[in-house]
Amino acid sequence: MSRLTVTYFSRCLMRNTTFEMLMPDSRQAGKPLRTLFLLHGFSCTAGCFVPEHLAEQYQFAAVCPNGENSFWLDGLSTGHQFCTLLGEELPAYLRRTFGICNNAADTSILGMSMGGFGALHTGLRYPQQFGQIGAMSSALIVHEVAQMQPGTGNEVANYDYYRECFGEPSALLTSDNNPEVLADKLLAAGTALPEMYLCCGTEDGLLDRSREFHQFLDSRRIPHEYHESPGDHDMRFWGEYTEKIVRWMFDR
Amino acid sequence: MSRLTVTYFSRCLMRNTTFEMLMPDSRQAGKPLRTLFLLHGFSCTAGCFVPEHLAEQYQFAAVCPNGENSFWLDGLSTGHQFCTLLGEELPAYLRRTFGICNNAADTSILGMSMGGFGALHTGLRYPQQFGQIGAMSSALIVHEVAQMQPGTGNEVANYDYYRECFGEPSALLTSDNNPEVLADKLLAAGTALPEMYLCCGTEDGLLDRSREFHQFLDSRRIPHEYHESPGDHDMRFWGEYTEKIVRWMFDR
Amino acid sequence: MSRLTVTYFSRCLMRNTTFEMLMPDSRQAGKPLRTLFLLHGFSCTAGCFVPEHLAEQYQFAAVCPNGENSFWLDGLSTGHQFCTLLGEELPAYLRRTFGICNNAADTSILGMSMGGFGALHTGLRYPQQFGQIGAMSSALIVHEVAQMQPGTGNEVANYDYYRECFGEPSALLTSDNNPEVLADKLLAAGTALPEMYLCCGTEDGLLDRSREFHQFLDSRRIPHEYHESPGDHDMRFWGEYTEKIVRWMFDR
Amino acid sequence: MSRLTVTYFSRCLMRNTTFEMLMPDSRQAGKPLRTLFLLHGFSCTAGCFVPEHLAEQYQFAAVCPNGENSFWLDGLSTGHQFCTLLGEELPAYLRRTFGICNNAADTSILGMSMGGFGALHTGLRYPQQFGQIGAMSSALIVHEVAQMQPGTGNEVANYDYYRECFGEPSALLTSDNNPEVLADKLLAAGTALPEMYLCCGTEDGLLDRSREFHQFLDSRRIPHEYHESPGDHDMRFWGEYTEKIVRWMFDR
Repeated sequence: MSRLTVTYFSRCLMRNTTFEMLMPDSRQAGKPLRTLFLLHGFSCTAGCFVPEHLAEQYQFAAVCPNGENSFWLDGLSTGHQFCTLLGEELPAYLRRTFGICNNAADTSILGMSMGGFGALHTGLRYPQQFGQIGAMSSALIVHEVAQMQPGTGNEVANYDYYRECFGEPSALLTSDNNPEVLADKLLAAGTALPEMYLCCGTEDGLLDRSREFHQFLDSRRIPHEYHESPGDHDMRFWGEYTEKIVRWMFDR
Repeated sequence: MSRLTVTYFSRCLMRNTTFEMLMPDSRQAGKPLRTLFLLHGFSCTAGCFVPEHLAEQYQFAAVCPNGENSFWLDGLSTGHQFCTLLGEELPAYLRRTFGICNNAADTSILGMSMGGFGALHTGLRYPQQFGQIGAMSSALIVHEVAQMQPGTGNEVANYDYYRECFGEPSALLTSDNNPEVLADKLLAAGTALPEMYLCCGTEDGLLDRSREFHQFLDSRRIPHEYHESPGDHDMRFWGEYTEKIVRWMFDR
Repeated sequence: MSRLTVTYFSRCLMRNTTFEMLMPDSRQAGKPLRTLFLLHGFSCTAGCFVPEHLAEQYQFAAVCPNGENSFWLDGLSTGHQFCTLLGEELPAYLRRTFGICNNAADTSILGMSMGGFGALHTGLRYPQQFGQIGAMSSALIVHEVAQMQPGTGNEVANYDYYRECFGEPSALLTSDNNPEVLADKLLAAGTALPEMYLCCGTEDGLLDRSREFHQFLDSRRIPHEYHESPGDHDMRFWGEYTEKIVRWMFDR
Repeated sequence: MSRLTVTYFSRCLMRNTTFEMLMPDSRQAGKPLRTLFLLHGFSCTAGCFVPEHLAEQYQFAAVCPNGENSFWLDGLSTGHQFCTLLGEELPAYLRRTFGICNNAADTSILGMSMGGFGALHTGLRYPQQFGQIGAMSSALIVHEVAQMQPGTGNEVANYDYYRECFGEPSALLTSDNNPEVLADKLLAAGTALPEMYLCCGTEDGLLDRSREFHQFLDSRRIPHEYHESPGDHDMRFWGEYTEKIVRWMFDR
């Protein structure tokens, strides 16, 4: 397995950004290589949380971008375009540089917590780019953010932070930053949705958020995998499900 | 010269941050080592723009933090505290880890463009930490930002970006984000200001901003070096003055 | 936990070398910090194989040098002085730069396979620097190498490789590259030996080498921990014993 | 310009190796990209000594491998195969991973001092891979090494070092480690030699080595560029000629 650290100038961020990458050494020239995007959580940083032996076994590249604390969305300010980075800029860069990431059939996306939200949101925003979504312990917090008033916030961050990331809270539920809106648009247009695998630990404070999104998908008869099992909002649970989801994605 | 890449968890950013560092190999255990902070410009990234031979000659450590496009200020949102990072968090980290950066007499700060603004602002905000300021081609744009109205911006970025970085534009000129306010507060309190060296190229679009700040300092009878010479907003000019300012800082 | 990548010019190697480092963020200025050297195996590379939570719990720095395939010895050629690097140059660098690694009481060394050999050899060569040795699945192959004739070698490498690393095979058993010679010298001089913890998996092809060294230590009545348990020459076994040995080193 | 750091498992070295890379951001998918290998000197380390603006202007990738102090040769010991790494393993890796480095017409090689020797030797050993050679201040020392006796050496390194890198000194002048032998073999086989550009500073202690190789090439009527001008064995001279040679390579 090769390990790459790549720094390029991002127009979406208006500055350099760095991503980490895992690439099978034994890649064959003519043969396409599948790619898995890995999205980290809030207060975390790019890192390959897929074990090397899985990337070896299924022969895929792992791409780990830095999302800072952006919720992987296009924020209000110039240079905070993390969703466009994930769905357009970075795939184009990878296509140009490595010849990978050519279409939805060969590109998947997986994240935990803020990254679980990002995987669902980005996959539903760019279904022509991402064929499969894995979302663990997802911070599906748009309904909470939509209630926020100027001067408020929560124990994690202040109102200005949430407004910068999600846009005006009062307009959030009907905006493209709400994954439900994106799913409904795809259904209305008759566009195929990415395959989805959601999971959450039963001790996780975000469990109800996953249940609600599961119910939303059921209400639209959108097929998806949904799993709960004992576990908390931690690496033990994510290690267990990273392996399960990677096998679900590539074992076919 | 040793080169170090250091990643630590920043409470100011609520996530990991990485800085680059140059450290003389021949440092002696008991002997203190001077430190120079280097602040990059807009759309740039941490990098040591001081030539190694100067750090070798004057035996100082160079510390190059990543300021993203923050204007090195504490922004409105949680986790955008770049000024506190520069003035408190990072010096404390360096003191704890390397035994350097102990006081204003052994710590200097130098930047260009956005980093020139940052050097002036941070040095005047933390005169007990920074004894000398070098500010090249500084983006002293608070008077322009103060005029911005919602929905506007300029060719570089939108209103939301400037508001996030500088706070409410209408309150900017009297806020601590305005270096003039900081200088006046130090004068009123009778606190010694850091030594300052300002320069700008005569072909630089930001020349008037440096002239105005030079005049402001003169109007308060604050001693400082001020230099103009032929040059543009580019590395050629900054290379020339980086050497001049480093010699001004350490050659005594 | 901070992560550092440090590149310095090594006189022992006559070129730059890079080591990785883990350092507790919450280190207190006046309080000393213990240090654990981690030595990788043949065909491997510097990497912190101690889990962060252990370094956090016991508040130690982990230092991971690159030993290439040197068996952590001073080879015949100029610039192949890996043992001197470990025992003198790098501790002096760490003392100068971070104020750590001051004596045997605050410095330990742990490795696996080639790194297990290196930990034993370096610790016995520099008992004034390393107070504790952890040696897992150690490649204690000096008796095999001592038999090699020009033109031979084994399935891993050729005769020239072994001669370069270990010196003339015919002189090896009585040279300072043989850990047994070092132990006997310390006993003869009445110098205290480092504390030692040896382990090997019962399925490991190198098991007999550990048993023989265990018997050698017993024959000299040198106190040491020795453990065998089911396991192979792999990360599963090393993960289990890294935790056990770290607790044995620091849990007192 | 993107900057990449790539670590892969090298069979030639029997361990991981890391190279640095510069890659134009604006590379077009279908269009081939030319590649320039950059070989560092003795006691140095991988680093891109070509200015970014030149790589931008001529749109080439720069690949900077780590040659340690190997003289870029296949040494006697297992795992010291730096020439095979340069001429076979690394081009194959780059072809597989980036789709570059496909033939002699799109691959050039440039180095200084030990790297100048390496560029000449590797280019003449693999003319099907390297179409152009740039050799600055080359350490063409095979005639000196060929005279060395066991127990001797010079002020740089001992006999064992030279024997490990160059093979038995007594056999060196007729071996494939001698660039003259390689050139004569290509002439005998009627194979086209790479284009060559040699230069050396008139104050450089290695000047006579370049003059002798220049005369050797003339004696075989092998066309090549040869330039002397005022300068020493230092970065000032190499900066000047790096630009000249890059323009000679790509400006057509």
